[in-house]
Amino acid sequence: MSEQAQTKTNPCRARSMRDVERWDKETDVAVIGFGGAGGCAAIEAADAGARVTLFELASEGGGSTAMSSAEIYMGGSGGTRVQRACGFEDSTEDMFTYMMMSAGPQADEAKIRNYCENSLDHFNWLVNHLGVPFKDSFHKERAIMCLTDDGLLYTGSEKAHPFSDHAKPAPRGHNLYVEGDNGGPLFMKIVSENVDKRDNITVEYESRALCLIIDDNNAIVGLVVRQNQQEFTVRATKGVILCTGGFIMNEEMLAKYAPKLLSGNNAIGNPGDTGTGIMMGMSVGAAAINMHEGFISIPYYPPASITGGIVVNDKGQRFINEDVYHARLGQAVLNEPGDRFYFILTVNQYGDYETMNFMGAEVAGTGESVAELEEELGLRQGTLQNTVAIYNEDVAHGEDTQFHKSAEWLQTLEPPLVALDITPGRGVFIPMFTLGGLDTLPTGEVLTAQRDIIPGLYAAGRTACGIVRRADGYSSGMSVGDATFSGRLAGRQAVARTNL
Amino acid sequence: MSEQAQTKTNPCRARSMRDVERWDKETDVAVIGFGGAGGCAAIEAADAGARVTLFELASEGGGSTAMSSAEIYMGGSGGTRVQRACGFEDSTEDMFTYMMMSAGPQADEAKIRNYCENSLDHFNWLVNHLGVPFKDSFHKERAIMCLTDDGLLYTGSEKAHPFSDHAKPAPRGHNLYVEGDNGGPLFMKIVSENVDKRDNITVEYESRALCLIIDDNNAIVGLVVRQNQQEFTVRATKGVILCTGGFIMNEEMLAKYAPKLLSGNNAIGNPGDTGTGIMMGMSVGAAAINMHEGFISIPYYPPASITGGIVVNDKGQRFINEDVYHARLGQAVLNEPGDRFYFILTVNQYGDYETMNFMGAEVAGTGESVAELEEELGLRQGTLQNTVAIYNEDVAHGEDTQFHKSAEWLQTLEPPLVALDITPGRGVFIPMFTLGGLDTLPTGEVLTAQRDIIPGLYAAGRTACGIVRRADGYSSGMSVGDATFSGRLAGRQAVARTNL
Repeated sequence: MSEQAQTKTNPCRARSMRDVERWDKETDVAVIGFGGAGGCAAIEAADAGARVTLFELASEGGGSTAMSSAEIYMGGSGGTRVQRACGFEDSTEDMFTYMMMSAGPQADEAKIRNYCENSLDHFNWLVNHLGVPFKDSFHKERAIMCLTDDGLLYTGSEKAHPFSDHAKPAPRGHNLYVEGDNGGPLFMKIVSENVDKRDNITVEYESRALCLIIDDNNAIVGLVVRQNQQEFTVRATKGVILCTGGFIMNEEMLAKYAPKLLSGNNAIGNPGDTGTGIMMGMSVGAAAINMHEGFISIPYYPPASITGGIVVNDKGQRFINEDVYHARLGQAVLNEPGDRFYFILTVNQYGDYETMNFMGAEVAGTGESVAELEEELGLRQGTLQNTVAIYNEDVAHGEDTQFHKSAEWLQTLEPPLVALDITPGRGVFIPMFTLGGLDTLPTGEVLTAQRDIIPGLYAAGRTACGIVRRADGYSSGMSVGDATFSGRLAGRQAVARTNL
Repeated sequence: MSEQAQTKTNPCRARSMRDVERWDKETDVAVIGFGGAGGCAAIEAADAGARVTLFELASEGGGSTAMSSAEIYMGGSGGTRVQRACGFEDSTEDMFTYMMMSAGPQADEAKIRNYCENSLDHFNWLVNHLGVPFKDSFHKERAIMCLTDDGLLYTGSEKAHPFSDHAKPAPRGHNLYVEGDNGGPLFMKIVSENVDKRDNITVEYESRALCLIIDDNNAIVGLVVRQNQQEFTVRATKGVILCTGGFIMNEEMLAKYAPKLLSGNNAIGNPGDTGTGIMMGMSVGAAAINMHEGFISIPYYPPASITGGIVVNDKGQRFINEDVYHARLGQAVLNEPGDRFYFILTVNQYGDYETMNFMGAEVAGTGESVAELEEELGLRQGTLQNTVAIYNEDVAHGEDTQFHKSAEWLQTLEPPLVALDITPGRGVFIPMFTLGGLDTLPTGEVLTAQRDIIPGLYAAGRTACGIVRRADGYSSGMSVGDATFSGRLAGRQAVARTNL
């Protein structure tokens, strides 16, 4: 059985340089995957003087970045141009504290420190070097994505407990200067134009990276690509940068590494997010870390007014402050034991939800009184009544003593009330994507389990395990922020390297 | 920077057979680590006719198994001799259903199926082949470990919701025929005697396995060991079985892979549980899975009477049925948001706790009434009162409508009441160990990320990711059960293999 199973094709297994008869192509830096990370890696490597070849599976660039809203999480150092223009100061320390809390116990402090200290510089690079436009205007409304062309909005849990107790809030979600949810396409159009105008970048589309090529010293010296049903060996004198995204489209990997994400029903990513870069790395001894974690969310706003309701479980208990980022709430629902979960709303709040919602939750019950709603939902008598009584008393005193929802969202739950069913698996929309990947230094150098560097191998974006580690602390813009920033660093580091 | 960091020693990096000048030692099967898994692997391989060399880091065998209670989780097929003698029938399907629920979404169905179908056979092998003694008597009291010489007890959440709703409960924890918590030393004494009397097993103590040796076809053909400050190459014609335990003693790995376990304060294992086997596997492309998971617990019984109390958070809310296994309760406390957690007890229940407890929790407050206790704990008025009122009403009706604690543990919480502080980090005893490891087939063959077999490499016990995947569903005896069973399978599979 062993031998037989073993001889099955392993598409990602590294090939030894000894078995390479000839090099079909040669470049300095090979970048695999033309999304936000790969594009920025290629530009930075090219600008440092290297010949770059960018291999993209699809017939055009874009990756998951082009499918996203492309908000970019930036701040610190006193504030970006947009932050300052909108009247927000932002200290690096506040940003660092917030991002460390966001990432939780598995935070990579060195990476987050580096990200925060260089975030303003990254903003300036995007604006001045690439030409990414941001309008100096603040979007006040609570939103998952900005549908106006405003340049700045709160995109996380900055103003919510417990984050606001430790770090002064500032909006850090930078939204491109374009109407509608069109940031991603515009961003990747700009990146693509930047790539196109650099003579030392070649892009090869419809190219599937099959595996890495490794020399006797365990250094990565190239890769094998398949194009038009033929295999080609590519020598990369400076190394290979893996920017192939995460693995949300690979069900087998999800079941093995991130079963939690199987509770979601809407995989966020492009069809190429099958984990090939991560597996190519693992095949040469790279450590994949944080593989169990992912973004998973119940996107309950807009309308922002839903935030004025309360979330309860099937014991009628609240368990989270409802003004957090939607992934933090989604993660809390998944963590919470119970068979049913509800958003309890007033008729006014529900009216807003009827007009516009992304959540897909159905009405589970209504009541002219709390007791009636409690009964209709099949909750034990006295449970929801006690929860609402305490909540309403707290609202009257202007302080949520139990879960510390910010005063700005405290509204009396005055019957008649409506309950929306937000139980996972009962129709509510639950988007998800992976947050595990190859362990890297902030430079993008890929590490083994012992944190030794694998020479010639780099990873960026979702293929690496970056600054974002959990749904609980996610903020919109952290992914494209991390992808573009880590891509640049990997591109730069590859060029700095002595030839192999 | 790259090259410099890279040249630092990587103690686990595999060596190429090309670099082996001579073989210092030769054996058929090399087993690394002489705990429960390694001992059983060696015996089974030897009994199948192979020459076996067992390398142990310490100066004697035993590993973490010898430090444990060595309860062994077995049943199914109608019941073991002990189960039947004690009046319990146990179907393979009930055992399978329970273990699948225990392992959760990341369950390895093939492994659990194999374990349950062969569990009776494993019992018979331990008893008849090794001579492990079990008394045909049932220990009725709820206990973490059996301090009498009784042979059988409930060691998990079999009788608790939600498990009991899906699988007919049966006690499956088999305790060795010895007084006190002395199962582990006795078990490993028996295993050691079995090893000693087999001429075709050689044990080399004080031997540190440094790395694997790999041939050009990615097959494992041996290893390097260090003994008395010298390195020796060992050729293993049938392969290498990694039985080096988990990584609970490796803080760097914990921080990277299982930060959740850092909430514990008592690492359960032997000093050699530093993850070397897992890292050796990873260095040849093996996939490490479930690395974020571990056993973590608040061992709140004995005394069993504590089960009659309720656990609440700092909102005065219950969140779990208190009759579950202690690791399921511990995990629930860690999952639950909140700054404080309490066990609320009657004076009688507290009296039992004063007499005997493993938990180390301090008294946080007392009250002549629920309102007084509520105030003393700083809980918001009306929260704990409502919880206790509902609970007591439910007790009066004989059914815990909210969390489904079994009727046998329902006792009115009649003031005066005592609150024990079970908040992690405030003195309560929280043992923990790792549950992630190398991905293997049920045979012990080690797999890459693509689930290709790495020829010649096997793993068992905690070095592999076995049948146990989560604290939430753990039962005492699953670890030694898995270690001994998976060790045997790996030993057998290695021998079945064509020579390398």
